[in-house]
Amino acid sequence: MSGNEKPTSRIAIVGVGQVGAAAAYALILESVAGELLLVDIKADWRDGQVRDLADVAYGIGSGTRVRAATHREAGQCDIVVITAGSKWSIGETNVQHMHRNVSVMRSVMRDMTPFRSDAIVIVVSNPVDLLTSIAQELSGLPRFQVFGSGTFLDSVRLRGLVADKAGVSADAIHLSVVGLHGDSQVVTWSTATVNGVPLDRFVAPVVSGVELMHADLEDECKFRSEHIIRAKGGTPFGIGSVVASLCSTVLRDKGDVRPVSYYQPDYGCCFSLPVVLGRKGIMRTIAMPLDEREKATVSRSAQRLKETIERLHKSQ
Amino acid sequence: MSGNEKPTSRIAIVGVGQVGAAAAYALILESVAGELLLVDIKADWRDGQVRDLADVAYGIGSGTRVRAATHREAGQCDIVVITAGSKWSIGETNVQHMHRNVSVMRSVMRDMTPFRSDAIVIVVSNPVDLLTSIAQELSGLPRFQVFGSGTFLDSVRLRGLVADKAGVSADAIHLSVVGLHGDSQVVTWSTATVNGVPLDRFVAPVVSGVELMHADLEDECKFRSEHIIRAKGGTPFGIGSVVASLCSTVLRDKGDVRPVSYYQPDYGCCFSLPVVLGRKGIMRTIAMPLDEREKATVSRSAQRLKETIERLHKSQ
Amino acid sequence: MSGNEKPTSRIAIVGVGQVGAAAAYALILESVAGELLLVDIKADWRDGQVRDLADVAYGIGSGTRVRAATHREAGQCDIVVITAGSKWSIGETNVQHMHRNVSVMRSVMRDMTPFRSDAIVIVVSNPVDLLTSIAQELSGLPRFQVFGSGTFLDSVRLRGLVADKAGVSADAIHLSVVGLHGDSQVVTWSTATVNGVPLDRFVAPVVSGVELMHADLEDECKFRSEHIIRAKGGTPFGIGSVVASLCSTVLRDKGDVRPVSYYQPDYGCCFSLPVVLGRKGIMRTIAMPLDEREKATVSRSAQRLKETIERLHKSQ
Amino acid sequence: MSGNEKPTSRIAIVGVGQVGAAAAYALILESVAGELLLVDIKADWRDGQVRDLADVAYGIGSGTRVRAATHREAGQCDIVVITAGSKWSIGETNVQHMHRNVSVMRSVMRDMTPFRSDAIVIVVSNPVDLLTSIAQELSGLPRFQVFGSGTFLDSVRLRGLVADKAGVSADAIHLSVVGLHGDSQVVTWSTATVNGVPLDRFVAPVVSGVELMHADLEDECKFRSEHIIRAKGGTPFGIGSVVASLCSTVLRDKGDVRPVSYYQPDYGCCFSLPVVLGRKGIMRTIAMPLDEREKATVSRSAQRLKETIERLHKSQ
Repeated sequence: MSGNEKPTSRIAIVGVGQVGAAAAYALILESVAGELLLVDIKADWRDGQVRDLADVAYGIGSGTRVRAATHREAGQCDIVVITAGSKWSIGETNVQHMHRNVSVMRSVMRDMTPFRSDAIVIVVSNPVDLLTSIAQELSGLPRFQVFGSGTFLDSVRLRGLVADKAGVSADAIHLSVVGLHGDSQVVTWSTATVNGVPLDRFVAPVVSGVELMHADLEDECKFRSEHIIRAKGGTPFGIGSVVASLCSTVLRDKGDVRPVSYYQPDYGCCFSLPVVLGRKGIMRTIAMPLDEREKATVSRSAQRLKETIERLHKSQ
Repeated sequence: MSGNEKPTSRIAIVGVGQVGAAAAYALILESVAGELLLVDIKADWRDGQVRDLADVAYGIGSGTRVRAATHREAGQCDIVVITAGSKWSIGETNVQHMHRNVSVMRSVMRDMTPFRSDAIVIVVSNPVDLLTSIAQELSGLPRFQVFGSGTFLDSVRLRGLVADKAGVSADAIHLSVVGLHGDSQVVTWSTATVNGVPLDRFVAPVVSGVELMHADLEDECKFRSEHIIRAKGGTPFGIGSVVASLCSTVLRDKGDVRPVSYYQPDYGCCFSLPVVLGRKGIMRTIAMPLDEREKATVSRSAQRLKETIERLHKSQ
Repeated sequence: MSGNEKPTSRIAIVGVGQVGAAAAYALILESVAGELLLVDIKADWRDGQVRDLADVAYGIGSGTRVRAATHREAGQCDIVVITAGSKWSIGETNVQHMHRNVSVMRSVMRDMTPFRSDAIVIVVSNPVDLLTSIAQELSGLPRFQVFGSGTFLDSVRLRGLVADKAGVSADAIHLSVVGLHGDSQVVTWSTATVNGVPLDRFVAPVVSGVELMHADLEDECKFRSEHIIRAKGGTPFGIGSVVASLCSTVLRDKGDVRPVSYYQPDYGCCFSLPVVLGRKGIMRTIAMPLDEREKATVSRSAQRLKETIERLHKSQ
Repeated sequence: MSGNEKPTSRIAIVGVGQVGAAAAYALILESVAGELLLVDIKADWRDGQVRDLADVAYGIGSGTRVRAATHREAGQCDIVVITAGSKWSIGETNVQHMHRNVSVMRSVMRDMTPFRSDAIVIVVSNPVDLLTSIAQELSGLPRFQVFGSGTFLDSVRLRGLVADKAGVSADAIHLSVVGLHGDSQVVTWSTATVNGVPLDRFVAPVVSGVELMHADLEDECKFRSEHIIRAKGGTPFGIGSVVASLCSTVLRDKGDVRPVSYYQPDYGCCFSLPVVLGRKGIMRTIAMPLDEREKATVSRSAQRLKETIERLHKSQ
């Protein structure tokens, strides 16, 4: 690097709807990067977001500068967060929603390539496992530099709900939601611990019916997004804040363990398992021990996803 | 206080639309209070916000707990932020908008009184100077415990825009927008300084035409909200983040100087001038030197506001 | 609480030598409490610390005010951190050191009682398990409101050292050092996990000889304080920062799991096991499964500590 | 930069005595840089500091890694903080102290050159104006990349003391101490403002005798370091925290206005005036209006400093 150019860390948010803007808001409040680039095909909307979010940076003296940018510029950032695509609307079929968002993803990836060789791409749009698979293929980047938010929000929620029940900080609970984000996601109850003590034994004194708690919380977690969407049309804050946290983990090279969606060679598609994350993306995968029933659930839905991807390839 | 009860600082947000939710999001990310109470007459909507924002608290291990609450509970908090009321819609007349929000304000104040005796009430809804005047009357609280966000966001913006032009941190610029929030607000260019050096002299080497800069930035500042509303329907993030900052100033008893809307005895209504803010609300007012033209502008619009308030009293 | 008095959270540091000052510095930088009271029998020294640390608060606009205070005032704070007593000097016998610090502890406890009924007392001085036992007896407070820093710093170190070896964030590692702080402390290798995966299996791919790693890191951890003391005469920063973190856990009622020294009824003295900490002190104990050898080690040293305490009682 | 190498921001602390260590502690607690390099000719001492400070990073999950390094490596960092040299001991003559520290400065500069071309060098050792002049000459770097902490701590203190008197946040006060750090430093009372209102008018209602306040606070400020040194042997925390703040201003390119010591061409030596600081060092100087008496004071002491520098050149 020449002495004349200052190295500023840059994050691009591609698609600044509710989710992208909520992620941007958190990133500015926490001064995660030196520069935040907002990208959207709707220029007026994007410029409105830039102005509204620049006011935030002005107000708190954030170290982060906000500006509008092109897809081309986004591809040259340290981190590219893709929230482009429409959110699922109640009433829309999943297939319709999927086709719309697959075509958006293909389009934004085309406009961004070639990426800077050490860029990290984080896919947030849904269906996240499918779109991560596509983004990873089209990016031209090493596999471990492209991942999806996957079941990270689900895991955060579940840990939070368990923490409230157990009267302990969520940080102290090791528990993940893994597999394909959505109906077939799997909770790793069997390996869950609180500071090394099996979770079920830890909560036993304070909840009656551990099995019941599993089922209740799993349901609350699975349908929480739908409840929120029915109430207010979207879930921007929860997902926005966990995306900002993923960006911080990557930029600061923290080595945090997070369940994210990434390419699983044995299955030919992306879904979530815990990994170690840092500046180079996925630095290490973690072989979570799943029992037979859990493995079967994951395997079945991964198979379906793989078939979908193959159909999409043919129809292209 | 008994030894059995732990003293937790509490902030209530009354009205959790876009602005209230953006303020809540920032308050959670920064763990400003121990508990955040969300209040809204639409229970489903409110519960959706509680769930979405609780996910944020779970994800970052925030020290802030989020829950739904009644107006009655809100009145017992350390700080009550009122964002209730509809935002101004393009096309709506100002008078229509005013009448709607005056009646919302009367209703929420009735439901919250009597307030805890040391509660601080921050009015954010528009027209902010009118609604602050009404809230202050109906609250039954000492005058200095009730104020409005007023021209604080305008001041933040203007300082930010000047900072970008001058190549200096916004923190280093002393410059306020004062008077009635809106068309007749006044910029205190004449007393503006950068670290004690008159602003105009400071920026002279880097901008051509200081007078022109004044006019340009004043306009950008005045119409920025309208631009953002036209582009995306609301300005939640800018105002949300400055409201969170006001809450932090109060709860942490910081003594920050902020232009906020408060009762001006000489004019019989509320408008913005800089004050010193702390846990007891407005701890000291600051007599800003205004020139004749500025005084006249403020005086004229304050007169109109006072008449409006009197008309509203009669028609009640 | 009356409406005229603002509730400010207060932390007292009793003994502002190197360790107390390092804890105070971290507490100010992070604005943990509203007020920080420094207490020391050497008034000049204490006032020098107040001035030096007040400069820190001035410089960063900390929400924390620093002032000198008496022991009596300290007893009325939310949290009382006791670092009084001399640090162990190389050459001094443990028995000499112990007697000196026991008498300091008795004296400061006498000067502080009666405590505010919801005060939390954190003992940092060494030998920490003995002094915590004494403080707990003399405090007149419920048992769960008095605890010692115990093996928390040892645990932090060990997790950090393992994290460096394993290429993962320390947060992701559940591993504690328990028992009596010092030569007989015990590492809970058998229940250690990384996100639910047994630690040894997690590190196997990256270290050769897991058993060897255990022994090496255990030694590095056990003798690290001695290394640091030999090099520079004290270990203020490590212990200062973990004490600040304990204060934050308590004041913000976080429910973090931490290994701290507290009264173990089965043994008649204090030593460290993980607990859940919040505003009421120890909110829950966690029954760590120890194997036979570990239990025997802890039991033997606890027996010795109990005997020491009984001797001290008689000789009083 | 190649795609294989991750860009990590690096700060070196050269000389990790009390001041260097206190700066390091604050930098770690706030995760200012990715890596912190500690340099000291006493290897055992340095390694003790590395261990003690690494424990801090472990404990809070700081984004900053700490390690020992050579002078050569320090010269390749983004920021090099020089605290090497002995602190002034009561009883030592200023001339003796000066000669000792000049020779230390020459030695560490020789060991670090050639510097990375965009390195920023911050001199903290005393006498700071003299040592900054020497460092600047020997560095081979552009003049605006080398500056000293100068009167920044004095300014922070004075603002803090005034803020306490005036019942307002220190942030709201524009007031600087300028000139040569020490007996002849000058306070810019005449241009001091609180949010654009002249300071004296602002404090008039709350203090009796503004002139007296000037003299009192100026004295307290000037002799505070001496008081603290007499009480406890050094002033590590105040200076450590403002140095950490300077590093943050530079690395995050904030454009803060700070009084620091830099080369004044009209005087042929370094002393403090306010400047705008960012990633490239001093981005802009600010012409503070001084009155005749103030100018004379500064001029006289600058003349003496210049003569000292010339004598040192001849005797080399």
